[in-house]
Amino acid sequence: MSPYSMVGKKMPAIDNREKVTGRAKFGMDLNLPGMLWGKVKRSPLPFARIRRIDKSRAEKMIGVKAVLTAEDMPGIPYGTYLPDELPLAKDWVRYVGDGVAAVAAIDEETAEEALELIDVEYEELPPVLDPEAAMLPDAPPIHPELANIKNNIAYRLAYTRGNPDQGFSEADLILEDRYFTPETHHAYLEPQACIAQFDSAGKVTYYASLQSPFNARKLIARSLGLPEHQVRLIQTYVGGGFGGKASAIQPLYPISAVLAKKTGRPVKMVNTRQEDFMTGRPRLPEIIDLKMGFRKNGEITAKEVRIIGEGGAYAGMSPATLIVSATRSGSLYRFRNIRMDAKLVYTNKIAKGAFRGFGNPQMHFALESMLDDAAARLAMDPMELRLKNATQVGDVTAHGWIINSCGLSDSIRRAAEASRWTEKRGKGKKNRGIGMACLIHVSSKMGMHPLFDGSSATITMNEHGKVKILSGEGDIGQGASTLFTQIASEELGIPPEDIQVLLLDTDVAPVCLGAFASRVTAMGGNAVKMAAVNLREEIFKAAAEQIEANPLDLEIREGKVRVKGSLDKACPLNEVAYKAVFQRGGGLLTGIGNYTVPDWVVAPDATQYGNISIAYPFGTQVAEVEVDRETGKVEILGIWAAHDLGRAINPLTAEGQIEGGVVQGVGFALTEQYVWKDGRMLNPNFHDYRLPTFMDAPPMSVIFIEALDPAGPYGAKGLAEPALIPTAPAITNAIYDAIGVRIKDLPVTPEKILRALRGLEEGKR
Amino acid sequence: MSPYSMVGKKMPAIDNREKVTGRAKFGMDLNLPGMLWGKVKRSPLPFARIRRIDKSRAEKMIGVKAVLTAEDMPGIPYGTYLPDELPLAKDWVRYVGDGVAAVAAIDEETAEEALELIDVEYEELPPVLDPEAAMLPDAPPIHPELANIKNNIAYRLAYTRGNPDQGFSEADLILEDRYFTPETHHAYLEPQACIAQFDSAGKVTYYASLQSPFNARKLIARSLGLPEHQVRLIQTYVGGGFGGKASAIQPLYPISAVLAKKTGRPVKMVNTRQEDFMTGRPRLPEIIDLKMGFRKNGEITAKEVRIIGEGGAYAGMSPATLIVSATRSGSLYRFRNIRMDAKLVYTNKIAKGAFRGFGNPQMHFALESMLDDAAARLAMDPMELRLKNATQVGDVTAHGWIINSCGLSDSIRRAAEASRWTEKRGKGKKNRGIGMACLIHVSSKMGMHPLFDGSSATITMNEHGKVKILSGEGDIGQGASTLFTQIASEELGIPPEDIQVLLLDTDVAPVCLGAFASRVTAMGGNAVKMAAVNLREEIFKAAAEQIEANPLDLEIREGKVRVKGSLDKACPLNEVAYKAVFQRGGGLLTGIGNYTVPDWVVAPDATQYGNISIAYPFGTQVAEVEVDRETGKVEILGIWAAHDLGRAINPLTAEGQIEGGVVQGVGFALTEQYVWKDGRMLNPNFHDYRLPTFMDAPPMSVIFIEALDPAGPYGAKGLAEPALIPTAPAITNAIYDAIGVRIKDLPVTPEKILRALRGLEEGKR
Repeated sequence: MSPYSMVGKKMPAIDNREKVTGRAKFGMDLNLPGMLWGKVKRSPLPFARIRRIDKSRAEKMIGVKAVLTAEDMPGIPYGTYLPDELPLAKDWVRYVGDGVAAVAAIDEETAEEALELIDVEYEELPPVLDPEAAMLPDAPPIHPELANIKNNIAYRLAYTRGNPDQGFSEADLILEDRYFTPETHHAYLEPQACIAQFDSAGKVTYYASLQSPFNARKLIARSLGLPEHQVRLIQTYVGGGFGGKASAIQPLYPISAVLAKKTGRPVKMVNTRQEDFMTGRPRLPEIIDLKMGFRKNGEITAKEVRIIGEGGAYAGMSPATLIVSATRSGSLYRFRNIRMDAKLVYTNKIAKGAFRGFGNPQMHFALESMLDDAAARLAMDPMELRLKNATQVGDVTAHGWIINSCGLSDSIRRAAEASRWTEKRGKGKKNRGIGMACLIHVSSKMGMHPLFDGSSATITMNEHGKVKILSGEGDIGQGASTLFTQIASEELGIPPEDIQVLLLDTDVAPVCLGAFASRVTAMGGNAVKMAAVNLREEIFKAAAEQIEANPLDLEIREGKVRVKGSLDKACPLNEVAYKAVFQRGGGLLTGIGNYTVPDWVVAPDATQYGNISIAYPFGTQVAEVEVDRETGKVEILGIWAAHDLGRAINPLTAEGQIEGGVVQGVGFALTEQYVWKDGRMLNPNFHDYRLPTFMDAPPMSVIFIEALDPAGPYGAKGLAEPALIPTAPAITNAIYDAIGVRIKDLPVTPEKILRALRGLEEGKR
Repeated sequence: MSPYSMVGKKMPAIDNREKVTGRAKFGMDLNLPGMLWGKVKRSPLPFARIRRIDKSRAEKMIGVKAVLTAEDMPGIPYGTYLPDELPLAKDWVRYVGDGVAAVAAIDEETAEEALELIDVEYEELPPVLDPEAAMLPDAPPIHPELANIKNNIAYRLAYTRGNPDQGFSEADLILEDRYFTPETHHAYLEPQACIAQFDSAGKVTYYASLQSPFNARKLIARSLGLPEHQVRLIQTYVGGGFGGKASAIQPLYPISAVLAKKTGRPVKMVNTRQEDFMTGRPRLPEIIDLKMGFRKNGEITAKEVRIIGEGGAYAGMSPATLIVSATRSGSLYRFRNIRMDAKLVYTNKIAKGAFRGFGNPQMHFALESMLDDAAARLAMDPMELRLKNATQVGDVTAHGWIINSCGLSDSIRRAAEASRWTEKRGKGKKNRGIGMACLIHVSSKMGMHPLFDGSSATITMNEHGKVKILSGEGDIGQGASTLFTQIASEELGIPPEDIQVLLLDTDVAPVCLGAFASRVTAMGGNAVKMAAVNLREEIFKAAAEQIEANPLDLEIREGKVRVKGSLDKACPLNEVAYKAVFQRGGGLLTGIGNYTVPDWVVAPDATQYGNISIAYPFGTQVAEVEVDRETGKVEILGIWAAHDLGRAINPLTAEGQIEGGVVQGVGFALTEQYVWKDGRMLNPNFHDYRLPTFMDAPPMSVIFIEALDPAGPYGAKGLAEPALIPTAPAITNAIYDAIGVRIKDLPVTPEKILRALRGLEEGKR
């Protein structure tokens, strides 16, 4: 039983009604009077020099208000880690889809037609399409302007923990293998969309469908050469992000601003679905060489990893993604000896970026696949192998992570129990099999900002006793507003209807890092809780004067402030608020919550060592599959998802998070990939890019492991990313259990299954 | 020399640039996607019963989305003082212009056409057009539904101060006269305009061109039968108000909401200029019977006043206007004995309301005219007569007003000096004359809200050291935002460019009463000053840690926080802010200022006795005129306006306030009036309604009398209304000085001059 009245309660998301009635305005829904439409002309070639751009015909077209090329832009390279991007390409185009010119016109169709009138002359170059080839000494540099980039390696992280050589020397079993993961797309419902508008003081205001408005503001300001305070972002309802609308800004932001500046009118830009596929920032594809040593009893003695991340044309957020690949899973088990060498490589393909889980799903796929193989070789139950090595409460991991709560072992046992693991495993009956995979992730992240991780919220109560929450974290559809409402409702003893979460405006809200790193529940939640507690104290102070009581004796129950246990000494909350507000000259009752991480949470060092998060979520998923040996088709019979989320503040939305994550994991496992030919994506649409549909969603059982964390609000940890991370290896491990086939490159297409089955049979002959 | 750096400095209004470039969006400029236009069908008769309304033809018209009559409205009578209004008339129409039906259509033209298709059958009744006739026993009741209204008297204020009978018995001279003032219109540049939009939770949001959004919210909510928190007002730029957009709401607010509710779409309504004239809330016309007693030395012994205010069809704000007429000027001089009987009377003409100065210009016209006559009869210089009786610092007036600052006598002397009063007066040369009039007004007003007068503001500083001011007072073009910016700049030591005043949103701002009673400078200014001081303390606390100093030793100079007098111990403010914000988890540095009036400011009692304002502005205007005896035309040769505004925080905008007021006073004196025929206004447009133009603006000299008030910010008092109050009597007194003609009913048309001159000559014969 929850000791709370609202926390732990299943509450439908507060914006459901606005959304299902179509009243919620997403970025692409907004229109402003006098607005123009912006569109971008894109390179049809993966690698070329731009010889000449003639925009004169387009400029003369009726309805066209401005045409831009790189010459018209501020010319300031930007990027989250490396200044390697320009909103419009200058001199070089580096992938199919690179913007070369932009148009603002009176409507979308006119803008699109005008693009056809822009003549671009290219000198085609042989593209670099393979990341390993890109690192060869004779490969052409993709960013010749960046002098300190050698062999197209944009970023590299190498480190050693413990003594890997000794670890391997102690091993009874050493496995080595190579794993591949593909590009996959976020496939958010709403495409990238914004409107930019300048005021006469030279300040640009965006209405933007973005995940991390404050981080985006910094990059946008840099790209425009404006000070940050001259950029204002008003977050619209966001139709999904999954990392794709996180801080690596899309070129449409600077381009729309320059068009708006030039025309003096608001300029709207909305990517087509094809543009989103071809120019968005999909999941970083990785080639992972993994080597692990085990003792006979299953204990892991060492791990050696080489990762090649194919970053494509621009680095963007990919260094962060690579870091996550190269580190996170090192704290899932009791690794002592790790050697890591991870490289991010430029190629002439689409730039990659942040996607739910960052690089964690990629590396978890490799690690959890190899554990499964090791269990087979050691003749152990894979569950036991995991329990043997599982990280435990009180551990300080190989990366210096301090584990104050850990539901990992519990999640393994509960997922196994629920799925009837022992009963089903290893039978191979009817081509059915069962597989397991675990995960660890963060729940906030020091080091994304030079000075802090934390969050701040302000809560006001007006003269009617109604409450407004001001946070800068933002709701991107993940339910942040609902969660904040529940927390404020819990602490203030008022019903959710009396609470409103204001939409995010960077000119008004406290500075927040936003929705990534599964940080909003923990960070934003702590801030809102603090603000609510402070507001409650304000209310008690005011009420204490009014009903002549000690503030410390008061409580709020059923809409009344009253002396605990007394029914006489009570006053309706709205009366308390009414009097208090006017005793303050109209000033609202205000609680501010400034949450910063405790001292023992630190930014990581250059090797990524350090306790970077206030808490770490864990979990285990079990998949049961049936494989059709004739067609190679994999049917998922069930997924049991046991997630340590600290506390389920809203079990309903938490369940939704997990279900959505699992389905995204199913796509990553079985169907989703960019199909390439000569550097061109062949499937940039929802017909050819095989996203799982409702029909593909497997039966799912969600199990909450509530390993309360002392630092999270009510013990809660992040849940947004974890749900996706173990799904793919759980499925491939189940396939192995079903038919003895190990697929090491995702997605597991029927063709790969059939090919592998043929290989098995040939092996037998 | 001002001891301040920003306060007292001429600063152009901060929104000038937005306004002159046309980028500032006024209420009538705004459009929302999917928006409909609303229009109102109006009564052509001054008094009638509605027999039948047939809206079926209009409803069938293509493009028409909704047609409303009273039946479709909530049917809740509302009004600031009396619940005598309905947004659409039910059963009765009470003036030409009363709304009977409303339409929402796809555009303005369609809506207007649809009005023609609504058939209304009236039973015409003899209208009551004269306020004195309206009070006769046999006059038909204009509001038969209001049982406790007798003789069409909507409101009455009667009181006695001291012993008037004894006062008159001590008088050497008793004068009695009757004065008339007409309806005049605010003639704001932007007509009444709003957009109403419902969300799915049943909350209505208005974008509104309103003076007092929080007061309006209360009335709108009442008229719609919604709780106040279900109504949100977002103030647009306001194209002038002058009281016409104050709290007596226009029917377009409830009507647009009901249309929006019914159609599920945003509905925009903008009055035509004709609608604004015919249905706005112009100045309350008054018939004033004034009797005064004087000793030979000029001392006033008693005053007896009867006022009939012609309120028209609905009471609205007129009771407040009448109260102002009946009280304010009683504190201008050292009155001891007053008898007052003021009545507000219903007629079948346009409802009246608030207009700059409320009822003060009307009563000042009567009082200052009679003082001039008394001076003539007592053979005194009118200036001396005023100085003899003038209220002084330290006085507690007949109404209980506590005078803590008073520049009245100074203003009389300085205006006289500047205008070369003594030299020019009484010469009658070349038909030229000079006249003088004084004024008193309030600068805030207890009793407009049951619990308070006061103001609250929140000021935040973000990580870039940029500042935002959140106030609920609102800028209606009077320069409130500029003033708040200057005050914050003064206290925080940062340049105005780094400060932004947020537009008013009742869902975000602290509760404020808004722009009326010349209260924004005093109340809002005090709140902003307190908030800025509190924010400065926050900054010093943060900086003290960073540069290791005592917060009490710090100051902000040239963008740096530094130890007073030391150049070594200093840190740029933006660096202080940057660190401090992130030490607060992203929380902005915040200062809250909750200003409430001191204990000695009280709500008035039932007789309107009590010290209702924190401070009282005074002033004197001198007018010099030349009268053409052939045409009756009056030319104003100069106005010397000496105003006690406490302190001129911004001499530039203060000068603008006075100049604008004087021109409005010139219109009131000479040209503006509603011309009536059988209850119909004949001149509802800017061609026939004679507003002074730039060409009619007289040469003006503005003199600031800075009688610092201890309760005002930096000593400042209100200035918005005073500028208009003495202009008309100064001009009519000058006319008397020029040609010996006393005009007692405004405006002073050439016809009245010629008629009076003829009367004089006949009198001589």
